[in-house]
Amino acid sequence: MVSITSVELNYLVFRYLHESGFTHSAFALGYEAGINKSPIDGNLVPPGALVTFVQKGLQYLELEANLSNSDADVDDDFSFLQPLD
Amino acid sequence: MVSITSVELNYLVFRYLHESGFTHSAFALGYEAGINKSPIDGNLVPPGALVTFVQKGLQYLELEANLSNSDADVDDDFSFLQPLD
Amino acid sequence: MVSITSVELNYLVFRYLHESGFTHSAFALGYEAGINKSPIDGNLVPPGALVTFVQKGLQYLELEANLSNSDADVDDDFSFLQPLD
Amino acid sequence: MVSITSVELNYLVFRYLHESGFTHSAFALGYEAGINKSPIDGNLVPPGALVTFVQKGLQYLELEANLSNSDADVDDDFSFLQPLD
Repeated sequence: MVSITSVELNYLVFRYLHESGFTHSAFALGYEAGINKSPIDGNLVPPGALVTFVQKGLQYLELEANLSNSDADVDDDFSFLQPLD
Repeated sequence: MVSITSVELNYLVFRYLHESGFTHSAFALGYEAGINKSPIDGNLVPPGALVTFVQKGLQYLELEANLSNSDADVDDDFSFLQPLD
Repeated sequence: MVSITSVELNYLVFRYLHESGFTHSAFALGYEAGINKSPIDGNLVPPGALVTFVQKGLQYLELEANLSNSDADVDDDFSFLQPLD
Repeated sequence: MVSITSVELNYLVFRYLHESGFTHSAFALGYEAGINKSPIDGNLVPPGALVTFVQKGLQYLELEANLSNSDADVDDDFSFLQPLD
């Protein structure tokens, strides 16, 4: 099972900041996270990658939450802002 | 199906930067994304929330990739750096 | 004798950063020094104000240094990088 | 007559930001102005150098303004916020 490293996640976040137009945040993170020394090939990471992963993660957690319900109501409201355990 | 908004994702990223010690990036994003005007209650968002969502998203995509394989090899290497469609 | 306050100096520095194209520094200082809450009317401060003041200050110190020389050599080299007492 | 270069002024401003506790601005300027590649020996520049230069510059301009007055009133108010010509 693949795991994400902090180097990879920092790069995803850096790209997100840049694509969202948060230029000052992207500038700062570039240096704080040493993005220019990152081994990641940016051309292999499509725009919106972070959004995609987070969106998929939300869907997975919603799926897990519904599957663990013994309740017949399989389309429970999944609240984003509840603590995750 | 729950969807993430950019206000929510910006908050997750802001928390990630702060928790990772990227103080200058967090400072900049706080203002660029108007975090202080965000309606999100930070007490309801646990530490490492962004990592959790991305990790779950990776697992979901790996699952989907394996399920769509007609190949008998169900434990294909899931390469993080391939383009996502 | 007029004295400069830190509010005024912060504003001069903010303008210098902005005019020099140091956009990320100007962005950060704007918030760190509360420039938007500054009472200073920017229209009354000409471009290059900080450079002017520092240049004049250098000339004044050079003048004072030469006047305090008992040496006949009144055109001593004024070294910028010596400690100021 | 000694002149200040932008490399030297950037360094003075960098030190001012740092000494004033404007850590995010100092961080950004460090990179935007390439301070780490600056040839200036920081040990030769005392704390508060920028304030000293600007203060001296103000005094010099006040002196010049009073000397150019044909008016007998040699202790004119020197207003900081008037445009400088």
